[in-house]
Amino acid sequence: MRAYRELSAAALAEEHARVAAAYAKAKAKGLALDMSRGKPGREQLDLVSGLLTALSDPADCSDGGIDVRNYGNLTGIPSAKALFAELLGVQPSQVIVGGNASLTLMYDVISKAFTHGLLHSEKPWSKQGGLKFLCPAPGYDRHFRITESFGMTLITVPMTPEGPAMDAVEAAAADPAVKGMWCTPKYSNPDGIIYSDATIARIAALKPAAPDFALMWDNAYCVHEFAGDFVPFPDMLSLCATHGNADMVYEFASTSKITFPGAGISCMAMSQANAAHFEKLLSVQLISADKVNQLRHVRYLVDKAHVLELMRAHAKILAPKFAAVLDALETEIAPLDIATWQRPKGGYFVSFNAMPGTAARIYTLCKEAGVVMTEAGATYPYGIDPADSNLRIAPTLPSPAELAAAMEIFCLCVRLAALEALLPRA
Amino acid sequence: MRAYRELSAAALAEEHARVAAAYAKAKAKGLALDMSRGKPGREQLDLVSGLLTALSDPADCSDGGIDVRNYGNLTGIPSAKALFAELLGVQPSQVIVGGNASLTLMYDVISKAFTHGLLHSEKPWSKQGGLKFLCPAPGYDRHFRITESFGMTLITVPMTPEGPAMDAVEAAAADPAVKGMWCTPKYSNPDGIIYSDATIARIAALKPAAPDFALMWDNAYCVHEFAGDFVPFPDMLSLCATHGNADMVYEFASTSKITFPGAGISCMAMSQANAAHFEKLLSVQLISADKVNQLRHVRYLVDKAHVLELMRAHAKILAPKFAAVLDALETEIAPLDIATWQRPKGGYFVSFNAMPGTAARIYTLCKEAGVVMTEAGATYPYGIDPADSNLRIAPTLPSPAELAAAMEIFCLCVRLAALEALLPRA
Repeated sequence: MRAYRELSAAALAEEHARVAAAYAKAKAKGLALDMSRGKPGREQLDLVSGLLTALSDPADCSDGGIDVRNYGNLTGIPSAKALFAELLGVQPSQVIVGGNASLTLMYDVISKAFTHGLLHSEKPWSKQGGLKFLCPAPGYDRHFRITESFGMTLITVPMTPEGPAMDAVEAAAADPAVKGMWCTPKYSNPDGIIYSDATIARIAALKPAAPDFALMWDNAYCVHEFAGDFVPFPDMLSLCATHGNADMVYEFASTSKITFPGAGISCMAMSQANAAHFEKLLSVQLISADKVNQLRHVRYLVDKAHVLELMRAHAKILAPKFAAVLDALETEIAPLDIATWQRPKGGYFVSFNAMPGTAARIYTLCKEAGVVMTEAGATYPYGIDPADSNLRIAPTLPSPAELAAAMEIFCLCVRLAALEALLPRA
Repeated sequence: MRAYRELSAAALAEEHARVAAAYAKAKAKGLALDMSRGKPGREQLDLVSGLLTALSDPADCSDGGIDVRNYGNLTGIPSAKALFAELLGVQPSQVIVGGNASLTLMYDVISKAFTHGLLHSEKPWSKQGGLKFLCPAPGYDRHFRITESFGMTLITVPMTPEGPAMDAVEAAAADPAVKGMWCTPKYSNPDGIIYSDATIARIAALKPAAPDFALMWDNAYCVHEFAGDFVPFPDMLSLCATHGNADMVYEFASTSKITFPGAGISCMAMSQANAAHFEKLLSVQLISADKVNQLRHVRYLVDKAHVLELMRAHAKILAPKFAAVLDALETEIAPLDIATWQRPKGGYFVSFNAMPGTAARIYTLCKEAGVVMTEAGATYPYGIDPADSNLRIAPTLPSPAELAAAMEIFCLCVRLAALEALLPRA
């Protein structure tokens, strides 16, 4: 195998015929495979079955005297706050515990900014026009969609190997209409990058023009290593406070990829002043999130050490899947010099950069051959990747055998799309 | 005992001395009793312990092939939709299943109206000024606070023994700034009234000027009889549709007072068109509510017949508590002709109308003697009862012995406040 760019037109045509035939054959199998979303596989769900019976008797349902079955405790039970605080390195009093899905908490911060205003808002965002939000891209489509749905203008900030391009962030934040930024700082979605200390320090020291700039710090993969040891990560709340930005940051986490994605608990962590502001707003909306499930998680997960032990068991299941993806790319694509990709050690994705102009075509080819991928462009604001290059590979749901079959098709599609682009038009 | 109004000034003074002495004695006991909120008691929570172990094995976690532990099924699992549909007499396709607390779903309808608009909104409510909302009162303080927190003007509609005063509702709804109405149609909070068929028909046939008038139909006590048989109740979605108002009504219910208030499931039911509109909006906010808890409830509650059986067990615990309240009032207060009250057969409250001008005083006297009541005025918009008369008694949480002690103090406070009002000023 040689780099495609070095091939003659005739050799390219020959290769195209070969790959097209292989693709047709693969397509004929009529497979139905899914590498589209970061869903844990069944084996991972079965790992945590003990959660189901962690509370089985009324006597189990007390958290330091609080009967978790009844009403009350708006911001969460003490032991669940303590568990999340330990995981994130923050104070329990900074934690508000939610229900399943931290996405809902993120949505709520933006929604409340619009309807009631954040702590330092001069007026609710709905009374201000022309608002903008910073979106490091490639990034998480669901983040971008929240701010898009509220009518904000999304501003793409390029991702670097160290995190968002900070010159661009600092320049953009000087505009008072820029109201915040989405970040997945550890094992970023989809790149799997850990923001560097220098980048984190610059973010914490940001001097945004907007007094109510919201740094949406989605620490979704805070303990989600699948290769190597747990990587400690700084407490962004303290860092921001050090730089006089205590109320700028809203941190989020959940157990979605620790226990059950369909029945986990979530949290947001913020300064005491922000927490007091949100508690007041939440008191109108909620009596409490599911406290039995909070205590169930506390009893089952116990503490950070025990969570990390569980994450190593997840890693044993995940590592071979990521290896299968990376091995396939290394063998089938690397020699052709038509794409680049990340080699993450944690998180849920492999970010793949195809030959510019071919990502949408690869998506379609995959789909037609029965392999569902995250839509091309999804990792960019408005679903539009200007280079039409990035694709997010999510290898966690399929079985290893399905994954091998899916990656075989994916690699064929990457090659076919590149060849179509490289071949001189008839 | 004779009616206070018939007593001479001297007899009143004598009675005042007697009651004040009894109050001082009761106060000296230093009790700490709570009749403030509609919280189930411990015995009720223990009734449903089987819920904790309804799903104990991975094999239990499938709902017709859906692995409820994983992501997906935004609007709820099919079996949970079917269960709520049967309880409410609506179609499963009209049901969206939420997490713990239907209050959050109600808040979300109002919040989405403000940020994105309802199906028939010309523009989001945040872009419209001077909006108003109808609040039948006495009513539920948490309802009123939602619309108040969004800056709407609350319009009090008097409650009658048949439900909201419909002449007032119809007149008010002719104002296009009036955007909706709060209703608890079965065992209304706090009056415990079931809206009459005639009232329900007039509500369903309402012709509001606002195209996006939201009838907030909180069927919180749909199966919550504590005396007598289950009382069937009409399907408001069908009734509204019959009158060309299919998209006007949003119905809510939850298992908060069926299973665990701290770990239940909730639902909203609406027209197919509204459900489609909300599903689109929810897809930005949520991946799903806790589906394991949805299936846990389905397996434990089974169907409506089984739910009604469980509610009869709740009733056995609740009936003596309500009887204790009503008996105390009958014995201690009725002969004095200083107050009126409802005699509900379901729901969670006894609505008490003290001598006008004395409710706040009774609240304070109770509090000083260690009995926490819902604050006087709470059942009215802005927490202001123009007659200073209504108090909400919540008898479900205390034990029967505590309740007897609390009612003894309450009745003393009612008498003392009345006597203070009736006595000629020195």
